[in-house]
Amino acid sequence: MERHKSNHSNHKVVIIGAGMAGIKCAIDLAKNGVEDTIILEASDRIGGRLETLKTPDGLVCDLGASWFHDSLTNPIFNKVLDDKRIKYFVDDKENLFYSENEAKIDQWRFREVLEEIMAYGEVHGIGSEKDYSVAGLCSMYDANRGRFTADDRKQLAFGAMRQLAELWNGTHWDNISAKYCFEGLGHTGRNMLLTSGYESVLREEIGELPPNYEAGKIKLNSRVSAINYEDTDKVKVESENGHVYVCDYVVVTVPHTILKLSDPKDPCYLQWEPPLPPTFAAGLSKTEYGSLGKVVFEFDACFWHENIGRFYALATKEPSNMDLPQPWEYPIIFLNYQLISNKPALVALTQEPLSTYLESLVTSKEVEIWRLFEPLISKISHVSPTPRPKRIYNSSWRSKKHIRGTYAYPARGKGDPEAIITLLEKSFDTRIRFAGAESVRGSANGCVHGAWMSGSREAQFILSYLK
Amino acid sequence: MERHKSNHSNHKVVIIGAGMAGIKCAIDLAKNGVEDTIILEASDRIGGRLETLKTPDGLVCDLGASWFHDSLTNPIFNKVLDDKRIKYFVDDKENLFYSENEAKIDQWRFREVLEEIMAYGEVHGIGSEKDYSVAGLCSMYDANRGRFTADDRKQLAFGAMRQLAELWNGTHWDNISAKYCFEGLGHTGRNMLLTSGYESVLREEIGELPPNYEAGKIKLNSRVSAINYEDTDKVKVESENGHVYVCDYVVVTVPHTILKLSDPKDPCYLQWEPPLPPTFAAGLSKTEYGSLGKVVFEFDACFWHENIGRFYALATKEPSNMDLPQPWEYPIIFLNYQLISNKPALVALTQEPLSTYLESLVTSKEVEIWRLFEPLISKISHVSPTPRPKRIYNSSWRSKKHIRGTYAYPARGKGDPEAIITLLEKSFDTRIRFAGAESVRGSANGCVHGAWMSGSREAQFILSYLK
Repeated sequence: MERHKSNHSNHKVVIIGAGMAGIKCAIDLAKNGVEDTIILEASDRIGGRLETLKTPDGLVCDLGASWFHDSLTNPIFNKVLDDKRIKYFVDDKENLFYSENEAKIDQWRFREVLEEIMAYGEVHGIGSEKDYSVAGLCSMYDANRGRFTADDRKQLAFGAMRQLAELWNGTHWDNISAKYCFEGLGHTGRNMLLTSGYESVLREEIGELPPNYEAGKIKLNSRVSAINYEDTDKVKVESENGHVYVCDYVVVTVPHTILKLSDPKDPCYLQWEPPLPPTFAAGLSKTEYGSLGKVVFEFDACFWHENIGRFYALATKEPSNMDLPQPWEYPIIFLNYQLISNKPALVALTQEPLSTYLESLVTSKEVEIWRLFEPLISKISHVSPTPRPKRIYNSSWRSKKHIRGTYAYPARGKGDPEAIITLLEKSFDTRIRFAGAESVRGSANGCVHGAWMSGSREAQFILSYLK
Repeated sequence: MERHKSNHSNHKVVIIGAGMAGIKCAIDLAKNGVEDTIILEASDRIGGRLETLKTPDGLVCDLGASWFHDSLTNPIFNKVLDDKRIKYFVDDKENLFYSENEAKIDQWRFREVLEEIMAYGEVHGIGSEKDYSVAGLCSMYDANRGRFTADDRKQLAFGAMRQLAELWNGTHWDNISAKYCFEGLGHTGRNMLLTSGYESVLREEIGELPPNYEAGKIKLNSRVSAINYEDTDKVKVESENGHVYVCDYVVVTVPHTILKLSDPKDPCYLQWEPPLPPTFAAGLSKTEYGSLGKVVFEFDACFWHENIGRFYALATKEPSNMDLPQPWEYPIIFLNYQLISNKPALVALTQEPLSTYLESLVTSKEVEIWRLFEPLISKISHVSPTPRPKRIYNSSWRSKKHIRGTYAYPARGKGDPEAIITLLEKSFDTRIRFAGAESVRGSANGCVHGAWMSGSREAQFILSYLK
């Protein structure tokens, strides 16, 4: 009996996941009088898809989410813009496009064609039955409207389109739905790159929690293995270590990569009792996460153009072997931290399958990374030979077993990516709430402020029921 | 009795206006068996707001509508793109921005700020009660979000915004509604500039009319002075010279500048019997036309960069005296006909009040035009002194008494410009139809293909009733 008791605890609200959505939900509940909450976090750290790297040389950069997007309407940005502890860089400086063959590609050569391909996708995509990939869209455009553009400019436009699509979504353009990927493209206002790291924002948020909440009520290493909502009154949330959290409401913020797992043998499988409604499970099964990787190259000194904000390396070929990438097979964006925060570093944005390949490297990891990136970096180098990096860091979002990717993208053939949002917003049981970056509509989807807004939304929902 | 008879004629459909809308309407009616139509044109020529200039040196350029806009969805363009008699230039080449102070302004310096101002307008404009001008929007943006941008870049962005707004709408940015002007901004696909002139397109269309229709059934110098629809059966359309055209349907394609005239003493006043319904008249009274002027400078030889498609001269000051313009007070776009059609000419796009001022010049017209434009052209000249033009031509859209402007723009404080479209589409009497470039929604509004589509739409409407 004693043992049974110790394995149970009662809570008004159990929040699953200590990322921005879960933390914001706890904040808003507490601010409105509901302090009887607990956050269960599967991993050994808070922050979810936020991860700030701080190097011995003082470079601060995010391996996960990096920007305040939608700066005009971003509620977090608008809250912290006068906060001296939060530092950001207005990411609107000059960009340089280049490729294996050209050291500088003027943007006018592809810009209007690129926009026309997107418009072509909208005209022929939305509302039509057929779905096709962004790569397929370019082929279709070429066949039907290619006659109006010289070959060299067209190839640049396709290259720029591949880069835009892949580094927006974190995956190869063959996987991305041309039908849905242009709808939410673009943000409301410029991007602000955190130079104090998203960790600084997370700390500010945590500061809004009740005293000692973090130490006492955020339970790390507490993976939820089952949610039982058979009882018409209480919901029982069971963690892997056998503790049962009995509650009135549960807010589920785990990534869809985890939520969609259907194999009970998967170590992160979440069991629902009764099982998730079939439409809900079917909706989740259509969600796909890309993996936008970051590779940080720290050098002794800057040897590239220090006033360029971003270097856009266009690919000159398609991958010949997905398992063994070669230089110039993937479009890459380099963020110039010399301009951003006066540190001689370049941060590469990568996509799948390249990002997963880089994560998988064990032996000679830095040598292999340098083999792939040295040709791209040497092309923007002012010195020869190209200096070797002092240190290389890279992200591992696909490998983190409780995350398994970075954010959802509109996958080809999987239908409208907003369909799942409708299911999540509505839920199938008043007591079971869903939050997280992928549970909001529009340009906040997949963003930190989207997660934040969703946590706030579910707190409001619960509060309205408690009244 | 004989005299009375000769003053009357009967027609199935009377079309008012021999512009693209009216001609297309007659074509579609004839193709579907309704040949008993007549077109009454107030002026002494067909084409309406189409006017192609052909100079002794062989330069062909339009003083009115110049582009196939929306090339991906433009039904006229898609019809003629293989027609060897129609020639066009894909207008997507390199553009050069410059000002009195800078010979070359890199676009990255203002592009993202410009886009952010537009996004700011959308966030704070649409759906809000208050309306303000585009100039006012920039002030508001500066006050609220100006802190994130260095002054020089902000001034460039405001200058680029002024240029975009004024040369899109043909009027000063103080007049333009920030609330409505960004909604329809942009086109679906690149712009195709007619190098054979819009006259060539008009000739192709006229070729689709029944034989001898143009000579026999397009009545020039036949201004309609009254439309009488008291009778429940026939509508009587009376021309200035006293002829009465009795018909089943009348298709009104006259510009809204004329349709809205409320002063019976105006020589172009159109009298309705019974009067236009008050909501209709009120809707029309809110429509404003700008006047996008063209000034053609023909030189002996090209002395500017021949590979630049357009030169964007940003203004460095606001007009000090609207009645006496000074150089650099108005943003101007120059189209480079050396690149476009291998002719040493520059065509300036101008806006009100400058365009109206230029139209008003009588004595020393060319001298005064050159006083205003020489400083802008000398800034892109590779030789000194700047060669004088051989010939100067300019448009006169505001002065043409049956037109009085170029196309409608969203005027500040006048409400949603689409409201009038709803009234026109619906009409107030089945027998009275409205067509013309301003009677269609979306990006075709104000365009030649919009006029064409509206003529086709009203033909279909009438045909569906005649069945």
